[in-house]
Amino acid sequence: MGILVVGSVVLDSVKTPFGIREEILGGSATYFSVAASYFTDVSIVAVVGTDFPEEHISFLQSKGVNISGLERQKGRTFRWKGEYGLNLNTCTTLDTQLNVFAGFSPKLLSPHRTQDYLFLANIDPDLQRSVLEQVRRPKLIACDTMNYWIENTRESLLKTLSKIDLLIINDAEAQQLSGESNITRAARNILSLGPSVVVIKRGEYGALMFNSKSVFSVPALPMEEVLDPTGAGDSFAGGLVGYLAATNSTDEASMRRAVVYGSVMASFDVMDFGPQRLGTLTYPEIESRYREFHRLAFFEDIVKNRFQGEEPL
Amino acid sequence: MGILVVGSVVLDSVKTPFGIREEILGGSATYFSVAASYFTDVSIVAVVGTDFPEEHISFLQSKGVNISGLERQKGRTFRWKGEYGLNLNTCTTLDTQLNVFAGFSPKLLSPHRTQDYLFLANIDPDLQRSVLEQVRRPKLIACDTMNYWIENTRESLLKTLSKIDLLIINDAEAQQLSGESNITRAARNILSLGPSVVVIKRGEYGALMFNSKSVFSVPALPMEEVLDPTGAGDSFAGGLVGYLAATNSTDEASMRRAVVYGSVMASFDVMDFGPQRLGTLTYPEIESRYREFHRLAFFEDIVKNRFQGEEPL
Repeated sequence: MGILVVGSVVLDSVKTPFGIREEILGGSATYFSVAASYFTDVSIVAVVGTDFPEEHISFLQSKGVNISGLERQKGRTFRWKGEYGLNLNTCTTLDTQLNVFAGFSPKLLSPHRTQDYLFLANIDPDLQRSVLEQVRRPKLIACDTMNYWIENTRESLLKTLSKIDLLIINDAEAQQLSGESNITRAARNILSLGPSVVVIKRGEYGALMFNSKSVFSVPALPMEEVLDPTGAGDSFAGGLVGYLAATNSTDEASMRRAVVYGSVMASFDVMDFGPQRLGTLTYPEIESRYREFHRLAFFEDIVKNRFQGEEPL
Repeated sequence: MGILVVGSVVLDSVKTPFGIREEILGGSATYFSVAASYFTDVSIVAVVGTDFPEEHISFLQSKGVNISGLERQKGRTFRWKGEYGLNLNTCTTLDTQLNVFAGFSPKLLSPHRTQDYLFLANIDPDLQRSVLEQVRRPKLIACDTMNYWIENTRESLLKTLSKIDLLIINDAEAQQLSGESNITRAARNILSLGPSVVVIKRGEYGALMFNSKSVFSVPALPMEEVLDPTGAGDSFAGGLVGYLAATNSTDEASMRRAVVYGSVMASFDVMDFGPQRLGTLTYPEIESRYREFHRLAFFEDIVKNRFQGEEPL
């Protein structure tokens, strides 16, 4: 099944303890679509300016990403500049220039209206709902958001949340959205707002998936070298939704595997600046890393009578 | 196989957002031995004062803990007072009165010298080595430490580390000990100091086990109610070493299951103040929680050809 992603395509300037890159390809729709491209067909709806480099278009096309919905408007492309702290857990935004993205109003072409899987990346919740009004009800609507929308457009965000299936956010956002510092209570609260599944990303600690019946925890891969965490969250979402769309299945076992594939794609993303590493993956590499996650988390279920006890085990 | 634990027995005064308790039973040897008591025979070497309440002795005995090495000295018992912050992740020590523990010098009785499993709880590394000098080489020597010893008695601690098999510490201690902020590099560094296995506890994020060949990650159980985290680390060590001793096995699969049993015991400990919940467990409860951890972390290994790809998977 195909995926439609609506989000941003950005020129990022990034500084981490391991280097500096100026105006490299970034944005939520970029990372999501590159990660998802390994699993299924993915189409982007986003906007760039007339200054957007042709090489980035070629790169997205080389990954098989459908860019017929990538609008090119007169003006400059969205630019973002950020700097990460020593442990890469903190990021300071130094500059945000929305440019053509300030007037972004997604208008879906006919083939985009009938995709079975939809990812509403981190944009104004009003725009997220305007997308929902243009599409035939997808099989799965996944959604991201951020502290800015939680704080400033809460009512609109709640309306969006009431219409989606899967919310993918980080732990701080989950706490802010729910007003609960305990992550389990935060997740329960968010499930009551509409989504039937919430996936909470925890950076180097992995991710948790909650639905009404169960909780699933996947670790992050312990890595000695992380060069640039930019895009990890959207790469995660791309792997997750990509796997679901590819298998066209949303049962519990598939959802768990999807969360692992999301973690796999995020783990590749952080190995280099921009979508550089993410853009040059092979299927054996992806499968091999999935197995690495399985080895990392695997332990045997109960074996009876293995230890001394006053009662039969 | 039996376990010997050398550590502290303390009267704790604890304040958390959920209540206050004055002079309840605590200490590393207490939590460790109560947790381990569900798995195998465990003997304590520790010291208390003449004021130590008889009811605590009875409690330990009711759990089958061998207290022949629990020395009663003239004077007051070790007292500790601490207060936890709102999210329970921070703890401020308000008062520490070592009392009779200040002169603690573990003298092992004959039956204690030949136990096959040994846990050196968080005490002066000089004392930890004095224990090692008194025992027949155990099958497994596990050890804990803390920031105080890392900072103030580093040389002695390094000597102890060169003689042990398994170090069980938290992430901040691992970073401080190794001088590495990246947890994987920290673990590699610690493995080079002597231990063949290091288990790094991460509180609500679970634990990681590193050996020379593999990494294992176990999540913490997402819990809506945590009343008092005191003793979680020692309960974890008690479940871990308890399971290894009970099965008398230290292969990779057993070590992983042991880390899960450690997590199981820690998850019970935090449900109430002191060792109250930990002290009233049944085997079915322990097994049921183990299964809960398994459901939490389980996902299927690779299934071939499950998603579209240009190469056969």
